[in-house]
Parts: sequence; C-alpha cells; structure tokens
Amino acid sequence: MVFRVRYSEIDQMGTFYNSRALDWFECGRTELLRSMGTPYVELEAQGVLLPVIEAHVEYLGRAGYDDLLQMTTTAAMCGRASIRFDMSIEHAAGPRVGKPVARGHTIHAFCGRDGKPTRPPAFLVAALEGRPTE
Amino acid sequence: MVFRVRYSEIDQMGTFYNSRALDWFECGRTELLRSMGTPYVELEAQGVLLPVIEAHVEYLGRAGYDDLLQMTTTAAMCGRASIRFDMSIEHAAGPRVGKPVARGHTIHAFCGRDGKPTRPPAFLVAALEGRPTE
Amino acid sequence: MVFRVRYSEIDQMGTFYNSRALDWFECGRTELLRSMGTPYVELEAQGVLLPVIEAHVEYLGRAGYDDLLQMTTTAAMCGRASIRFDMSIEHAAGPRVGKPVARGHTIHAFCGRDGKPTRPPAFLVAALEGRPTE
Amino acid sequence: MVFRVRYSEIDQMGTFYNSRALDWFECGRTELLRSMGTPYVELEAQGVLLPVIEAHVEYLGRAGYDDLLQMTTTAAMCGRASIRFDMSIEHAAGPRVGKPVARGHTIHAFCGRDGKPTRPPAFLVAALEGRPTE
Repeated sequence: MVFRVRYSEIDQMGTFYNSRALDWFECGRTELLRSMGTPYVELEAQGVLLPVIEAHVEYLGRAGYDDLLQMTTTAAMCGRASIRFDMSIEHAAGPRVGKPVARGHTIHAFCGRDGKPTRPPAFLVAALEGRPTE
Repeated sequence: MVFRVRYSEIDQMGTFYNSRALDWFECGRTELLRSMGTPYVELEAQGVLLPVIEAHVEYLGRAGYDDLLQMTTTAAMCGRASIRFDMSIEHAAGPRVGKPVARGHTIHAFCGRDGKPTRPPAFLVAALEGRPTE
Repeated sequence: MVFRVRYSEIDQMGTFYNSRALDWFECGRTELLRSMGTPYVELEAQGVLLPVIEAHVEYLGRAGYDDLLQMTTTAAMCGRASIRFDMSIEHAAGPRVGKPVARGHTIHAFCGRDGKPTRPPAFLVAALEGRPTE
Repeated sequence: MVFRVRYSEIDQMGTFYNSRALDWFECGRTELLRSMGTPYVELEAQGVLLPVIEAHVEYLGRAGYDDLLQMTTTAAMCGRASIRFDMSIEHAAGPRVGKPVARGHTIHAFCGRDGKPTRPPAFLVAALEGRPTE
C-alpha cells in the first residue's frame, strides 16, 4: 500500500514520531488481510480478535510531512496459536525513492470476544501463504 | 490539573499539534468528574456514555515539549439532555507562567450503551455546580 | 478525498475518538492545497506557516474501523490575514453511504518561520476560489 | 512514574492501543533523564538529539481507561555511540495492582541538529548508572 505521511505524525525533529510506525503497521496488516479475502473487520465480526503480543520496529531513515511511502506486508503462522506480520516501509517517490524508512514485525494471539485464546480459523490458516501487498 | 506536554504531542512547528488540545480536554473532563465524585469510568460502567457532539478550540499560545501546563475545567447542563464542559489551559511554570495556551468547550449527549439518548442521571445533574478543578 | 478509518482511531465506544476529526481535517487541507497547486509542504519550504488559531467540529454520526469516508474541503480568506477551511466528512460506501460523520472548520494565521504574522502570499490568495476536493 | 490511561488511548477491544506503549515509553525516558539531572529538553537545547533506532514492546496484560499505571525505566550505554532504555509498566492500583502491562526497550543514536552522529556528552555517560525512576 502507498500512503502519505500526515502533518500530525511529524515531531519536532522533522521526521515521523516513533510510535507512528506501529499505527502504520496496523494499516499494512489491514490491507494484507483484505487482499487475502479475510478483512480484519470481518474477523472481528466473527469474534476472532488479534491482540498484539509483541511489536518490534527498526527505524532506518527519515520521512517528512506529505512524503509518499510504500509499505509491504507479509504474514505467516507463528506456532499453532499466533500469527506474525512483517512490515517494511520505504520511500515511494521523490529524491529518496526506494530508501528504507522502517521495518519490523508484530505477533498476535487469536482471541475470542471474551479475551480468551481461541483456535485460528481454518480459512485464515489456509489463506496464509505470505502474499505481499503493495 | 497540571500536566506535562509529551514529545509525541509536538509537531514540526515546535508547539503541540492542534488535535492534542482535544486529547487534553478529555483529561480535564476526567479529573473534573472524578473531583465531583462521579468518575467517568463509573458512569460508563453504569451505562451512561457521553459522546462528544461538538468541540471548539481557540489556540492562544505556544507550548513546547516538557512544558508544565495547568488546565481548569468547568461543567454545566446544556439544555435538558446534554452537558457542556469548558476547558482553559495556561502555562504553569517557566518564563511563560500564566500565559494562555488554549481554551475551548465540548458538548456531550447522554447516551446508553445502545447509543440511544438517555436521561442524565440525577446524581450527576445534582453534582453539576461548576466547581473548577485545578 | 476518500480515506479509511484506522483501527488506532477507534475508541471503546466503537466510533472514532473525537480528536481524530482534527487529524483528518488536516488531511483535507493538505489535499485541497495540493489540488490548488500550492502544496502546504511547499508553502512551509517558502517560510509560510499556517498555525491553527481556531478549530470547530460537529459530530454528526458514527464511523467505525475500516469504514470508507469522503471528506470535502473548501477554503477562503477570512479577513486579510487569516484563512478558513471548511471540512465535511460523510460515509463513502456501505449501508451508511452519504450519511454525515462530522463537519467543522479551522482558521489559520499566516506566519513566518519566526512565528510572527506575515502577509498571505499573493499566489495563494489568487488561488483561493473555493474549489472543493473530492 | 505513575500515570493514568487516557480515554483517547483505548481502542475498541477496551485496552490501550498498541502504539500507545511507545508514547508512554517516551514519558518514562523523559522522567528518568530528568531524575538524572539531564532533562531531555536541555539535551536538545544543547544540540544533542536521541532519535530512536529500535523499539521493542511485549504486551503482557490489559489496561483500561483511567487505570493507574506505574512505569519503571532504566538506561545504559549500548556500545559507544548509542543508549538503551528499558521500560516496564504494571498496574499501580485496583484489583490488578502489580500485574504487568507491558515491557520493552528503545535504542537511540546520539545525533547533532544536523542529523549526523555525534559523541555522547560526557556528563550523560557519567550519569548513566541505571537508577530506576518510580
């Protein structure tokens, strides 16, 4: 997916504030799940929640207000009861096109609406073939 | 209430990003309701939600990272079915102590968990005597 | 402009948190200025800053995670030294298509990098003919 | 440091949104540096910036709106040119007092205002003895 950096996401160093990478990673997961035919909003409606249990970010380069960025996301099962997403963000335009901005991963449990661990839905496991979204 | 400006709240102009005032106003409402003996978390637990239906902010001065600010909040019924909070923020320390930062108001409906309008709880109406929190 | 509501923007009432409207309004201003040929990032590079001096939001309807929303933005001079943007957001898809979500305005001063008031650039005043972005 | 969870930080699962942990970690670093006699705002004024180059979070438990949390932060040099902060957050009150909420670390480079690597200031290296803030 391609997106623009918002003014609200830039700090006084002139680059995105560090926690924004996790907000963006969520967007990458959303678009990957949609492209796999299993939008997260439908998973939640079916009572399958994916709370984050681990997040990791490496900050590789600056990105300023209004910069166009591209995020690539992949997913894979991580053991039998959790799912791991890997996100990678780079400049999509301008003089820094192709330069890396951030990469990282998040690991998620499968939970029911009661917050208790649940079995990953078979259709999602089947769909997890790691197709990147661009 | 007195609070410090977070690094994550400052934009590349070196002052707080405009939407942060609304985040802070929420904190002012929270502390006012607590001081009135009706914490919002308890209101929600009783099924009384206060969704915002109008917000207004005037930006009066700059505030930078780590600045100590003071917010004063008052509340009053606004008609029979909504409540209005007025918030005012100024510098609490440093060379700009007493200088205004922002002021504004929010108006809230009384709703039940189903999102439908509900009657304001009598204890809250009774408590609404506009005592400021500092 | 059309955009999707992020998971990070939804609160425990299941609709967007109130301050997010101001984050979105910024995106509307960004796209309007771009469509007028005067991207804000270029204004800032030329030393013309537009700090917000007033913001107002009316919340008209709910919007949940992943909902597609459309924002329409117009701009006009507001006196000789400030600019006013009006933003209006509605559902762009789904069962609530066309239903209003929020509307409001922001008023901005023209400042130089030193934070002092400056004269609005002639090309921007000329461009301000209120064309909506969709 | 002890702090309250803001309404704006809670998502529709009823616990804090994952990126908020990084916002909180920043507050922990701010208070640790202050307690060491080297407030970050003064470091920045002296031209020493600490951009984040890596962040890691493990999510250990839920925390809801208005919950009182306690964060403990330690710091240490990480090689000769970067600094590592470790943060740990637990419930500070209520039925879950003492229960862990999140822990993680951030690693920061030392940069000058030009964004280029710089040598860590001697007074900061001397002060880095890992005293926790509570």
